[in-house]
Amino acid sequence: MQRGDKAEIMEAATLRQGIDDLCAAYADCIDDDRLEEWPDFFVENCRYLITSRESHAAGLRHGIIYCASRGMLQDRVMALRRANIFEAHRYRHIIGPARVDRVEGGVAEARSNFLAVRIMHDGDSQLFATGRYLDKIDISSHPFRFVERTVVLDSQKIDTLLVIPL
Amino acid sequence: MQRGDKAEIMEAATLRQGIDDLCAAYADCIDDDRLEEWPDFFVENCRYLITSRESHAAGLRHGIIYCASRGMLQDRVMALRRANIFEAHRYRHIIGPARVDRVEGGVAEARSNFLAVRIMHDGDSQLFATGRYLDKIDISSHPFRFVERTVVLDSQKIDTLLVIPL
Amino acid sequence: MQRGDKAEIMEAATLRQGIDDLCAAYADCIDDDRLEEWPDFFVENCRYLITSRESHAAGLRHGIIYCASRGMLQDRVMALRRANIFEAHRYRHIIGPARVDRVEGGVAEARSNFLAVRIMHDGDSQLFATGRYLDKIDISSHPFRFVERTVVLDSQKIDTLLVIPL
Repeated sequence: MQRGDKAEIMEAATLRQGIDDLCAAYADCIDDDRLEEWPDFFVENCRYLITSRESHAAGLRHGIIYCASRGMLQDRVMALRRANIFEAHRYRHIIGPARVDRVEGGVAEARSNFLAVRIMHDGDSQLFATGRYLDKIDISSHPFRFVERTVVLDSQKIDTLLVIPL
Repeated sequence: MQRGDKAEIMEAATLRQGIDDLCAAYADCIDDDRLEEWPDFFVENCRYLITSRESHAAGLRHGIIYCASRGMLQDRVMALRRANIFEAHRYRHIIGPARVDRVEGGVAEARSNFLAVRIMHDGDSQLFATGRYLDKIDISSHPFRFVERTVVLDSQKIDTLLVIPL
Repeated sequence: MQRGDKAEIMEAATLRQGIDDLCAAYADCIDDDRLEEWPDFFVENCRYLITSRESHAAGLRHGIIYCASRGMLQDRVMALRRANIFEAHRYRHIIGPARVDRVEGGVAEARSNFLAVRIMHDGDSQLFATGRYLDKIDISSHPFRFVERTVVLDSQKIDTLLVIPL
């Protein structure tokens, strides 16, 4: 990064803010239980994967939850609503600032760390999951949308509890 | 948002930074136990409310803690100091990036997620509270100040423990 | 801060982003167990200190971990690798936005809050530490590097468990 090139640095700053805003809106959607809006954060031809650090490091492309299109995301929400467990608990996401690794052809690659607290219906709150979002984001039009979102969980202990998307 | 309008985007970026800074300074003030400075983060004619997600969703305007002026905030700090419990524990706030929902007439509406860890005098640390700040902020002069700060707690289990403001 | 001086405000925004990026890259390096790269986040003639809130408030300059040069940081990593405990657990840092207190002579003073979750080899995750980073950062060249990083822990209960740097 050349310090002289102020315009470029500022553009980078506004890009990162746009990505921070996308990540925050995504988390709000889930934390507010507006899951029907969740698929709209993705482009039609998307990929959503929840995996563990070990699986991800081993290069495995499948994981705990895997969806290969927006339609599959919608199916997942419908199944979850039908199962009627959605009132049982909520999440609260705390997300660190995004880092943009690379921008090419209207797609930004970014990463951010997250922590999710799970709040049960009776008010009990627990540290539920930590990990990293690895994202490919379509920044060629507004609003930004995820082309890929890979959720890499730090712990492999979580899968049986995982119903709501992260 | 029009991509062409760079100036506006950058102004939005600096506004968000100003709000992030306000939220961070507010949390520092509490975490550092400089509670006497806490009322100064609000305008004279302010509103401070700690409530639960359920009460907030039901539209209730009163909550666990409610102050309708800066004087009431000052009274609260004095009472807390007199009760002499302020040495018993501290908080550490971790706050996610702010999102600005709307700016009108010199007031910005913003939201951010928070997590507060409580550190007891003996060193025990626990996840104490998570939730969301819903803010109206006077941005017409510096420093920015809260016109309203509504603290929406994710859990209703917290009230008996709540002494220090969040 | 004068509102009229937009250029200055924007420069502040890009500086803060640069510092956020440094803090995030630093945490990633540790969380990814790339500890050999950790000393490179510091200038040669650096100071790294992990201390408790009480010790810091008392003005003590030594603490739980103290390194006074990049070479000492490298020694620490080598010792840690030799002890072969590095596989036993990982951290996940969640870091709040940085605040820049002051810039002078190419050095920025900044602070940020952090929370570290510890993930054991069997997948157990626990809130491990919270506290504040107090930093002096060389911003005269890229990449930015720490001149000083003081890690002020909220709890004094942590020392016996502390092996990996924070």
